[in-house]
Amino acid sequence: MPSKEVNPDLLKERQTATFDPHEFSVFWAGGEERYKEKKSLEKIFLEDPELKDDLPISYMSHKELYEHSLRKACIIGEKIRKLRADGEDGVDTYNALLGGSLGAAILKEGNPLSLHYVMFVPTIMGQGTMDQQVEWLSKAWDCEIIGTYAQTELGHGTFLRGLETRADYDARTQEFVINTPSLSAYKWWPGGLGHTANHAVVVAQLYTKGEFRGLAPFIVQLRHSDTHKPLPGIDIGDIGTKLGMKSVNNGYLGLKNVRVPLNNMLMKNQQVLPDGTYVAPKNSVLTYGTMMFVRCALIRDTALSLAKASTIATRYAAVRRQSPIDPNQPEPQIMDHTTQQLKLFPQIAKSIVFKTTGDGIWNMYNVLSGEIEQGNLDRLPEMHALSCCLKAICSADAAAGVETCRLSCGGHGYMDCSNFPTIYGMTTAVCTYEGENTVMLLQTARYLVKVYGQALNGEKLVPTVAYINDALREREFVNFDGSLESIVKAFQFVAANKIRIAYEQIEQRRKQGHSTETAANLSGTFLTAAADLHGRAFLAESAYKELLAVSRQVSPALADVLKVVLELYLVDACLNRIGDFLRFINITDKDVTTLEIRLQNCLRQLRPNAVTLVDSFDLHDRVLDSVLGAYDGNVYERIFESTKKNPLNKEPVNEAFHKYLKPFMKAHL
Amino acid sequence: MPSKEVNPDLLKERQTATFDPHEFSVFWAGGEERYKEKKSLEKIFLEDPELKDDLPISYMSHKELYEHSLRKACIIGEKIRKLRADGEDGVDTYNALLGGSLGAAILKEGNPLSLHYVMFVPTIMGQGTMDQQVEWLSKAWDCEIIGTYAQTELGHGTFLRGLETRADYDARTQEFVINTPSLSAYKWWPGGLGHTANHAVVVAQLYTKGEFRGLAPFIVQLRHSDTHKPLPGIDIGDIGTKLGMKSVNNGYLGLKNVRVPLNNMLMKNQQVLPDGTYVAPKNSVLTYGTMMFVRCALIRDTALSLAKASTIATRYAAVRRQSPIDPNQPEPQIMDHTTQQLKLFPQIAKSIVFKTTGDGIWNMYNVLSGEIEQGNLDRLPEMHALSCCLKAICSADAAAGVETCRLSCGGHGYMDCSNFPTIYGMTTAVCTYEGENTVMLLQTARYLVKVYGQALNGEKLVPTVAYINDALREREFVNFDGSLESIVKAFQFVAANKIRIAYEQIEQRRKQGHSTETAANLSGTFLTAAADLHGRAFLAESAYKELLAVSRQVSPALADVLKVVLELYLVDACLNRIGDFLRFINITDKDVTTLEIRLQNCLRQLRPNAVTLVDSFDLHDRVLDSVLGAYDGNVYERIFESTKKNPLNKEPVNEAFHKYLKPFMKAHL
Repeated sequence: MPSKEVNPDLLKERQTATFDPHEFSVFWAGGEERYKEKKSLEKIFLEDPELKDDLPISYMSHKELYEHSLRKACIIGEKIRKLRADGEDGVDTYNALLGGSLGAAILKEGNPLSLHYVMFVPTIMGQGTMDQQVEWLSKAWDCEIIGTYAQTELGHGTFLRGLETRADYDARTQEFVINTPSLSAYKWWPGGLGHTANHAVVVAQLYTKGEFRGLAPFIVQLRHSDTHKPLPGIDIGDIGTKLGMKSVNNGYLGLKNVRVPLNNMLMKNQQVLPDGTYVAPKNSVLTYGTMMFVRCALIRDTALSLAKASTIATRYAAVRRQSPIDPNQPEPQIMDHTTQQLKLFPQIAKSIVFKTTGDGIWNMYNVLSGEIEQGNLDRLPEMHALSCCLKAICSADAAAGVETCRLSCGGHGYMDCSNFPTIYGMTTAVCTYEGENTVMLLQTARYLVKVYGQALNGEKLVPTVAYINDALREREFVNFDGSLESIVKAFQFVAANKIRIAYEQIEQRRKQGHSTETAANLSGTFLTAAADLHGRAFLAESAYKELLAVSRQVSPALADVLKVVLELYLVDACLNRIGDFLRFINITDKDVTTLEIRLQNCLRQLRPNAVTLVDSFDLHDRVLDSVLGAYDGNVYERIFESTKKNPLNKEPVNEAFHKYLKPFMKAHL
Repeated sequence: MPSKEVNPDLLKERQTATFDPHEFSVFWAGGEERYKEKKSLEKIFLEDPELKDDLPISYMSHKELYEHSLRKACIIGEKIRKLRADGEDGVDTYNALLGGSLGAAILKEGNPLSLHYVMFVPTIMGQGTMDQQVEWLSKAWDCEIIGTYAQTELGHGTFLRGLETRADYDARTQEFVINTPSLSAYKWWPGGLGHTANHAVVVAQLYTKGEFRGLAPFIVQLRHSDTHKPLPGIDIGDIGTKLGMKSVNNGYLGLKNVRVPLNNMLMKNQQVLPDGTYVAPKNSVLTYGTMMFVRCALIRDTALSLAKASTIATRYAAVRRQSPIDPNQPEPQIMDHTTQQLKLFPQIAKSIVFKTTGDGIWNMYNVLSGEIEQGNLDRLPEMHALSCCLKAICSADAAAGVETCRLSCGGHGYMDCSNFPTIYGMTTAVCTYEGENTVMLLQTARYLVKVYGQALNGEKLVPTVAYINDALREREFVNFDGSLESIVKAFQFVAANKIRIAYEQIEQRRKQGHSTETAANLSGTFLTAAADLHGRAFLAESAYKELLAVSRQVSPALADVLKVVLELYLVDACLNRIGDFLRFINITDKDVTTLEIRLQNCLRQLRPNAVTLVDSFDLHDRVLDSVLGAYDGNVYERIFESTKKNPLNKEPVNEAFHKYLKPFMKAHL
């Protein structure tokens, strides 16, 4: 083991901090109570020797990794049972264990039982009738059955109406007959489907009395309860190795004339009566709600990924010394290179802004849920549009930020023991799942173009797009004085203009004779650009409001740091879209240089607090799981120690030398 | 096996092409002769059943992968021997087999013998005396000894003077005593060092007669010739799993009082006499040359990576159908979505421009080499500056482009069988090795700032920076008419202004009392931005010149396509830096919209030729190694077939069910 002493360079960094990291950690955890719950869960789960790895999983084959992960998933499941039995399963237990920070510490490439907890059980709760919940929920809750959620198909993803799997009701036997009629209809991707789950909610096109009724969810048993063998008509397996999420056991599923009883269709929203009569759902708003819920949660996930990556890279940048700034001086901490600061500090700022924005949007979602339950659907489209573009922007920025952090560590970031490759794999996946990012931006854009038309007609828009009314009224943005408020306003003005152009592009093409849909496709890149700016304007405003609000509640010392974070975030965001600012707002070359110098000043101001800021994210060494990012900063000792676990190094001479290399080398002799 | 029939969507695409793909393929290969050599090598290497994998390597553990790769590396080595004996090893044999397209087809995660061929042998040739070449070269050439090149250390990379490994000459025994005096001095990263090589060129700080003499290269035997056991004083092993290049067997090396004879120091450039007298090298230009050589080669590598990724993604986009553009129409090929075109087509254009620029710079390098041999070093700094920033820009853009292609394939791009994860791992590595990208940009910037000062003093600059003279003379850019030539000129004008600002920033900070070095560090982000624009201006000019030159030599049909590629490249490049254009050049919002519409027109024009263009890159299915990108386009069949090779799927029930899951599920019963 590396020595317990903290690297002196890190020690020095911690002494220059101007604020109390504990105060920030409590804020970051969401308050005293959640902070304590976090610490208690860490104790229960991270100190259990059964949940530690002797062999780093990167050395395992795919099969070994699955077996290893299922073992741990069962131990976690057993511990959750115990916590529940003791009444100690708090709000955050499931979040933390299934994908959150704690889950990543134990099963860094994902948990093959996750979808059971986060999709199978909630779907029964949300879409099953009371009777169905009684029948299925307790079994699922106790893990007597393990389920997953099978919707996406090999040939069909985002466009749900394109799904091919079909369920035909047979009134004679009161059963549904479920089929995947082609290869492209095979269910593909569900976590745990490969070899773990014995049940699934299968989403299929419903036909009763020979008529098409739309999509419906069915509980299908996949494997025998005792032998775990696939049941007749079920073709099932693991889809193979992936860029990341390597131990989720994503599976495929073919169904051939698989019959399930009438009661296996989840019927809370729509019903099939025994004679095959179909009763349509009242409205589809609730499923809309679930998608938004998931996307809002994902925004917080991206903040966590970025916090992990920036913690590792910032600590490393304090310890690593390279390339003298002045030839007569020794090699400095690489964090003293301005170019290094520009790589790292914006990622720290984004971690904080994505987190506070994620929390803010979570609160908006809860208010909205309440309104929906009271039948008020007014803000639903607005909220949907916002959650789509924020999911896209935060996941894309977080993934890019993780890579920036990795590359900032040079070659060492390329090693798996840095943990960057795993963090990247988990983060970039968010760009694709739960709505592919470009599709998300197009959904937002469709809403924006619609409300732009309303604003042109003089309608007053809802809060998150009200800036369009302002822009139409003011036409020109005259007061860019560089203040933070003015940057936020400018972002909105720029967004309004990008929406205007998208709107005009569509109109122009319609006038050329294209249908609205074709016109929208031909204007696709204008639409995604508009949605991007809308999301960034919201993030800018949210950063401004939330961080100033927090600053008023914390100590002046912490408030000062948060204000630097805010300024850094806004100036950096503005410079990253400076083309749009210059295009629509009357600013000069000199103004831009002023902003660039201001960015450098922010970097300089953050420098003494950088390490303590990432310390305050309070990410356990097991969560970071990085030789470069541990709290003690003993980077080289930890890298070297990691080589001792490498199975290749257990023998001084690998047998491949005798089998292949020696005969090849001696061939001439 | 999938059916041999080509997917009808791909067939259709190939029928809409307006040019002859074979004509392009021959141009791409570098002429008829090289095209034939390429085909012949493919036959020899790709049709050998011994070099095919039954089990995809992503299913192997790290140890299994090493053994598998060493076996193949030896087979390749044996074939190279045979080709050489038959006099059939042409210019491209080594390039193609060691990292090029063919190498990647056989050992997609790299060859543990590569560094022997590309670094060990050339270093002896370049830095050994005639006598030393006689002694070592034939053994190395015949692979009786296997070597690697050990320079980078655990704690030291780019800054060579910081290396800690030292060689002390002992005149008494006429030996060097080599030591890595600390953990951070351990050699780290050399390919094949782990368990493969039995020799290495070790770069160390030389001390003779108690005095420091600078860096020198030493041939050190690491392992016993027969037993392959590490020799006394040698601590050696594999550094562990990585993001990519997984079978290169990167190693670490600690040396403790390892003695090598006087003659093991490579002495072509500098000498140590038996009594310890040191004879310094005449100049260090030659090592400079090697670095440039490698960087020029890397530019072509990035073009190949991007060509692979865009081939896979473009073919997939022709086969995959999703999300109706018009609700009454069936789901279109996703390539019909404008947003998809904007992801793919610029990558195709960049592949072509990086390739032609790489070829162009290769020719410049050869001219320069000739000049250097005649003692003319005039263009060396210019060429060095250019190779640095182009290496940085092309590698960064290629890595980002590969990810854009991967993400454009949705979830399927995330599967290892798409081959995107491997291509990305190989491509992003180029951002770090052979000079980390930020360091590269700073080196270019140092040159640019220097010549800017010269231009201010009225000096006439060398060709690649002569645009600075023009910009200083003209002050304003008045003739932006949107023509391709004017975009190229505008790029140069913008670059000159970025250099001006970097220069002014440094001057200003010097006036504030900072040393030049500190001023440069404080202006670091201005410097990298200036170098970035310099490189992009060069790429723009190179694209313009090279592609128009090619267009004049090929058929009108192909010339027309290349002109669209050129316009797409330039307009896209301009829009990607539109902030800088708006900042320094008087263009309006409307001008920008015009450029954006023009980009869309380019996409539309390229659409019918997109598949045929990537076909013309003529990348063998084994080189692509992708279920999504094969020539026949049978995507879903190939994906499904890949699951049959997954070891997890060989048993219907994994033993982990019985060991872990069943007890967990039945615990309550």
